[in-house]
Amino acid sequence: MEKGGITYPEGFYASAVHSGIKQLEKKDLSLILSKSPCVAAGTFTTNQFKSYSLIWSLKNINNPINAVLINSGNANTCNGKENYQHTELLAKELSVIIEKDTSSILIASTGIIGKPLPHTSILKAMPELVKTLSPANHTLAAEGIITTDTILKQFHTSTGIKGKHKEVAIGGMAKGAGMINPCMATMLCFITTDAVIERDALQNALKEAVEKSFNMVTVDNDTSTNDMALCLANGEAKNKTIRTGTDEYNQFLSALQTTCAELAKMIASDGEGATKLIEVTVKGGWSIKDAKRVAKRIAGSNLFKSAVYGAYPNWGRILAAAGSVNAKIDVNNTAVSLCGVRVYKGAPLRYDEKKLQETMKSVKKITVEVDIKKGDFCATAWGCDLTEDYVKINKE
Amino acid sequence: MEKGGITYPEGFYASAVHSGIKQLEKKDLSLILSKSPCVAAGTFTTNQFKSYSLIWSLKNINNPINAVLINSGNANTCNGKENYQHTELLAKELSVIIEKDTSSILIASTGIIGKPLPHTSILKAMPELVKTLSPANHTLAAEGIITTDTILKQFHTSTGIKGKHKEVAIGGMAKGAGMINPCMATMLCFITTDAVIERDALQNALKEAVEKSFNMVTVDNDTSTNDMALCLANGEAKNKTIRTGTDEYNQFLSALQTTCAELAKMIASDGEGATKLIEVTVKGGWSIKDAKRVAKRIAGSNLFKSAVYGAYPNWGRILAAAGSVNAKIDVNNTAVSLCGVRVYKGAPLRYDEKKLQETMKSVKKITVEVDIKKGDFCATAWGCDLTEDYVKINKE
Repeated sequence: MEKGGITYPEGFYASAVHSGIKQLEKKDLSLILSKSPCVAAGTFTTNQFKSYSLIWSLKNINNPINAVLINSGNANTCNGKENYQHTELLAKELSVIIEKDTSSILIASTGIIGKPLPHTSILKAMPELVKTLSPANHTLAAEGIITTDTILKQFHTSTGIKGKHKEVAIGGMAKGAGMINPCMATMLCFITTDAVIERDALQNALKEAVEKSFNMVTVDNDTSTNDMALCLANGEAKNKTIRTGTDEYNQFLSALQTTCAELAKMIASDGEGATKLIEVTVKGGWSIKDAKRVAKRIAGSNLFKSAVYGAYPNWGRILAAAGSVNAKIDVNNTAVSLCGVRVYKGAPLRYDEKKLQETMKSVKKITVEVDIKKGDFCATAWGCDLTEDYVKINKE
Repeated sequence: MEKGGITYPEGFYASAVHSGIKQLEKKDLSLILSKSPCVAAGTFTTNQFKSYSLIWSLKNINNPINAVLINSGNANTCNGKENYQHTELLAKELSVIIEKDTSSILIASTGIIGKPLPHTSILKAMPELVKTLSPANHTLAAEGIITTDTILKQFHTSTGIKGKHKEVAIGGMAKGAGMINPCMATMLCFITTDAVIERDALQNALKEAVEKSFNMVTVDNDTSTNDMALCLANGEAKNKTIRTGTDEYNQFLSALQTTCAELAKMIASDGEGATKLIEVTVKGGWSIKDAKRVAKRIAGSNLFKSAVYGAYPNWGRILAAAGSVNAKIDVNNTAVSLCGVRVYKGAPLRYDEKKLQETMKSVKKITVEVDIKKGDFCATAWGCDLTEDYVKINKE
């Protein structure tokens, strides 16, 4: 098996096992390990209720990082303070096995809220987890972090930045399948790079990349109690240190943005019960904030999402969602295109509704373009259609 | 047939006909007429895209009002500027038939966005509409304003305020069945009273009553392009004029609040595809804003709404929704009750999950109580469960 995903950059190893949190022998525990300590950057949920795993990682993110332990099936959230000690215990035990500092280990969790973390089964599984570490196991690791996801989410790319023997590379994996729903869906993203880069530069780049990718598949700043995006840089490419503002920084940022955007789109199109990806681009925003707000609101409108599922070109629902946002909009000149067909410009436009319905039925990605005619700012948001299956999945 | 609903107060008449906007001979045009001119108050959508009918009513709300014309099946929104002239035409024609000023007629619409208003069929139907006016036709009128509603929404009450020969009365009817969905669902409410009341007092009372009722069944300030609540006071009770701040004002306000709250609950429990009403009460808010925000967010959470449909006591989704709001919350002491069962208080509480599931299955109203332990403010929001039928209804 080839290197790829999170093991695509130099010096990263991955593994996953079934520790017993999930049923049916499903992988539920993944590990990422770097041969040399990493500079780490992270973005974390804004939800006021936070997972104990996330609280641990927040506390240690600025240390040199050697490994990231991820479990699925249990959120380790709102389940009682003792679970923070159990989380610490996991880090301690892992640090002993890999012979590193406890403070060099990050932890992430996803799954059901309010259940005690089965730390003893996780502890039991650790030796096997470490024993099976390999650059070839990136797909296994991607499998170990999913919950209701139906597709594995991995991506890797080269940055074009010259290192000593190789180009600086970036790899990533993510989980998340509930973005269809504005109120709760854990998004986890783990990105690795062999770049030599300053911590500030890495943090700036990750923050900007996440803003334009993962944060545009969630709606109204609702984020899960466990959302986390981590980026580890282990310096194995031995390139000239990347500093904010330099050409190399911009090269690195654009590769990181591509990585995040690709993973974000995989998450949106894998929304629970979803059959189609919705991509909403808003132009003419008075500010970037305005453009983002409108794009997110449209991508998150239950009525529009249902219409997309029914291949029903109801552009009225697009306008109504747009108009309900606190953003500057020129209501007399706003223009709307649906799947490339211009349907509205201050007033309804003539178009072949039958044909547009056929298009909406046949394509996997529904593109919406709205020009609110107030300025030059632009933003893109992603969502997916709302189906009976979404309800089926979430009522249980 | 008895007086009731909007004809319960003295001197109001109602009627409804099928004008041809809807299929299958369904009533699609209603009229409310007062024997004497009314002081009117209104609250209107905050959506930036507004129905031409609503724009007309906004323009005339401060005039003495004799009649309100309401059509269902067509929103008269985003359908081209010429439709404003057609709206004016409707008011003109009706004013001629009832021999009143054009400026004394309000108009409201609900239905699909972006289609030309079929004003000629509406004009044709007007004579019949006026001819059939009667205090007994309040239920017919309630029928003429609905769209996807499955139940008619009417309420009336007495205020306890003495008039010359009778107590001051309040009656109302409403439509709206999409409140389950945060992004678009027209809510129309028409309230009549025979009170003698100052315009300012009436406007203040309506604003406050709507804030605590209809505005608590919508989420995140999303409102339809057509939302409107109107209150007409024709003075037929000949009571001592009600002024803001007096005891009579408070009596009137509380009766008006009851009317709005009852109609609001009917709307929430009649959510598209809904099987259960969700009532979320948030205590311990640092401010009324905080309490409202949290209550609305929980009532609007797709994940929680789906869980309610599945009778699945997933209180984690309640906390996650609460924590995602920009409001002060004491995360270490927040307490949650579901259907009267205390399930969380800073940590999970022991409770009989089987029994709670049975309760959730059997009751029609799911009550949620969350104490965020930051202050003394309290707010209640209403929603309903999210079902496969909601998607079925809205994909077409």
